Amino acid sequence: LDNGALYDARGHLHSLYPAEIALLLRSLPTDYRYRLWKIMAPEAMGETLAALHGEVRIGLIEHTSGTDLVAAANQLEPRDMADLVADFSSEVREKVLKKDGNSRLEAALSYDGHTAGGLMSMDALPIRGDVTVDETLAYLRAQKTMQANMDSLVVVARNNRYLGMVSIATILTSDAETRISTLMDTAEAIPLNMPVAEVATIFEQRNLLSKAVIDEQGIVVGRITLEEVLDVIREEADHAILSSAGLDEEHDLFAPVLVSARRRAVWLGVNLFTAFLASWVIGLFEATIDQIVALAVLMPVVASMGGIAGSQTLTLVIRGLALHQISSSNAMSFLFKEMSVGAVNGIVWSIIVAMIAAAWFSNGPLGMMLGGAMIINLSCAAIAGVLIPLFLHKKGIDPALAGGVLLTTVTDVIGFMSFLGLATIFLLA
Amino acid sequence: LDNGALYDARGHLHSLYPAEIALLLRSLPTDYRYRLWKIMAPEAMGETLAALHGEVRIGLIEHTSGTDLVAAANQLEPRDMADLVADFSSEVREKVLKKDGNSRLEAALSYDGHTAGGLMSMDALPIRGDVTVDETLAYLRAQKTMQANMDSLVVVARNNRYLGMVSIATILTSDAETRISTLMDTAEAIPLNMPVAEVATIFEQRNLLSKAVIDEQGIVVGRITLEEVLDVIREEADHAILSSAGLDEEHDLFAPVLVSARRRAVWLGVNLFTAFLASWVIGLFEATIDQIVALAVLMPVVASMGGIAGSQTLTLVIRGLALHQISSSNAMSFLFKEMSVGAVNGIVWSIIVAMIAAAWFSNGPLGMMLGGAMIINLSCAAIAGVLIPLFLHKKGIDPALAGGVLLTTVTDVIGFMSFLGLATIFLLA
Repeated sequence: LDNGALYDARGHLHSLYPAEIALLLRSLPTDYRYRLWKIMAPEAMGETLAALHGEVRIGLIEHTSGTDLVAAANQLEPRDMADLVADFSSEVREKVLKKDGNSRLEAALSYDGHTAGGLMSMDALPIRGDVTVDETLAYLRAQKTMQANMDSLVVVARNNRYLGMVSIATILTSDAETRISTLMDTAEAIPLNMPVAEVATIFEQRNLLSKAVIDEQGIVVGRITLEEVLDVIREEADHAILSSAGLDEEHDLFAPVLVSARRRAVWLGVNLFTAFLASWVIGLFEATIDQIVALAVLMPVVASMGGIAGSQTLTLVIRGLALHQISSSNAMSFLFKEMSVGAVNGIVWSIIVAMIAAAWFSNGPLGMMLGGAMIINLSCAAIAGVLIPLFLHKKGIDPALAGGVLLTTVTDVIGFMSFLGLATIFLLA
Repeated sequence: LDNGALYDARGHLHSLYPAEIALLLRSLPTDYRYRLWKIMAPEAMGETLAALHGEVRIGLIEHTSGTDLVAAANQLEPRDMADLVADFSSEVREKVLKKDGNSRLEAALSYDGHTAGGLMSMDALPIRGDVTVDETLAYLRAQKTMQANMDSLVVVARNNRYLGMVSIATILTSDAETRISTLMDTAEAIPLNMPVAEVATIFEQRNLLSKAVIDEQGIVVGRITLEEVLDVIREEADHAILSSAGLDEEHDLFAPVLVSARRRAVWLGVNLFTAFLASWVIGLFEATIDQIVALAVLMPVVASMGGIAGSQTLTLVIRGLALHQISSSNAMSFLFKEMSVGAVNGIVWSIIVAMIAAAWFSNGPLGMMLGGAMIINLSCAAIAGVLIPLFLHKKGIDPALAGGVLLTTVTDVIGFMSFLGLATIFLLA
């Protein structure tokens, strides 16, 4: 990316959608990213910043003049504007609020980002239930411009009180004199304070394209479309994958080395604690290992197999909880099933492992101890794999974040303790 | 779920959406699931089966009469019907094909499920570019019924050749005499054979609600809506989470114990091989461990910290590849960054670990060996975390599936070898 290439890049940027520019910026090491940002056309800055989030966005904001930021924010609709200005310095945010000069941004800023209020746009086009199809069409035509993603209209009574929704397809295929109230679908609207995950579930299960949002008095305050729900689902999926490794979707892939190192260090520190816990368990059996060194050679097998079996169960439960497939009503059936699977695999693999170990060290009893420990650890791994995420979920802790560490702590401790314990009891006699 | 409860359940089922019934069925242990299925109203079977997939659906199909299956399939639109009858026995499938009596199902069956063709529905409502807004509205009204999710219309020339798309919002707000061809957006349509993941990316990046699908001659053959894309994104996310634990999203949570055990066994077997590889490495240093038992106590710390650090990098790269954030053009920058992070954290944690070990065993040199091995393993973990998924991706192997096993094999082997090797060289002298 020298200067000639930057000139070419500018032409190329023009042909990209904001989300594509956003992806490109995220994928660039920071120095290239800021050089490309400098040559961006100011008109494209608003939508591009709206398509980014977390650290990458904050970094770009720091590399943009206050004037450009105010202009960029003003290109956006209130909800995206509210989301963006939350990352601005208070000084620039004041300027946007002043320039905007209406109450819609302030209203958007007042909604909680984790609820339907933070997700909705305020562009609902409410119509009255007592008008006819023809009157509605005339009204729409008078609007001159309309959101392209408007698949249905919100039907309201006096005072904007929610009555139902009517799809534009229905309006278009109905007789001119039909009243809207006879065409509308009266399914409940989404309350302002519904959590975003619940909103996403409703959209997915009912194949909705858009839905009205109402406040506590039943007054229509906005609407949510499938596009916003898609963002929620994408972010949830990202979060689930990253948090299982102690990572955060808000972070920049190309954050400075020391910043990244410090962030990762937290997770490594937690795991160091559990690793030393396992070491301490092994330390309890130092005298046994001193007499039978083969134990040291074989003990990681028990711990590792328990970790793998447990994480399979854990993954199923975490996903089941996220998709509402597992709840308190069927948890016992599932626990029982997983214990059976763990026991069956424990027995099968313990026989194989026992034979390999017995042959390797020409020591039958050693193989039997290894096999016995495998059965114990795989059964415990199944129980821990079900109970740990259920417990964390109940306590309001994200099981995807903490589940893996807790599980491997259990499987390491039980794995080492059962193998070395059995060996101490039966082989040292 | 006794008989009284089943009677209540029937009433309750009536009030649920097909996707909600599907979720309920998936969450039930198989015996309850089939009892509930028996009391389902046949009218709801089609959409419910369409909302399920994999093993759960196949199980339900086996518990349904041929007549009910044919009726259920006929409730669906061609694409969902094609997807469903693929799971039917050839005998029942023949009956559906005969009863359907038109070529749309046969066409749908001929498309590859992993491409745009398998995703699209055949309900595009093409209009000619040379008609006016008023003529279009009259044409739509004459349709009597229209898909509720129809946000825009496909504009075609003679012979159904694709010209562009026009949103219904634009039609509604334009003058009656305007020609459609002056209002349409001429962005390219989606080719029939575009992979579904690419379709999803385009929809996400361009905020599309629907898009026409064309064949090689540019003839419109169907359209894809955001709803279908949502399913793709949800399945991709599920797949990413489950395959990292060697699991498959097609499988039933409540599959029989022996079936589940056999499936999990494959993954356990792969991991057993790598566990024994680590054991073999330890076995090379039996004589060293025999002299310094503390090595056996501490060695899991090196392996486990390497595994954690490596899996953080691995997770970032796998996600970066899936979101197109990492490609060959920026892989080197990222590798360099991750190596630096690994080195920094290796140095920091090696000092802490060395001090703990030295104090615990009152053995300074032992602590230094542990610290040295940590630096080596965390650096190698960073390199493996970047290169393994890039290599697998290039070879067309899903890095989410195989990446974790390969990575922990590397970190275990290098962890044990570096710690025990350093100890053999410097402590036994």
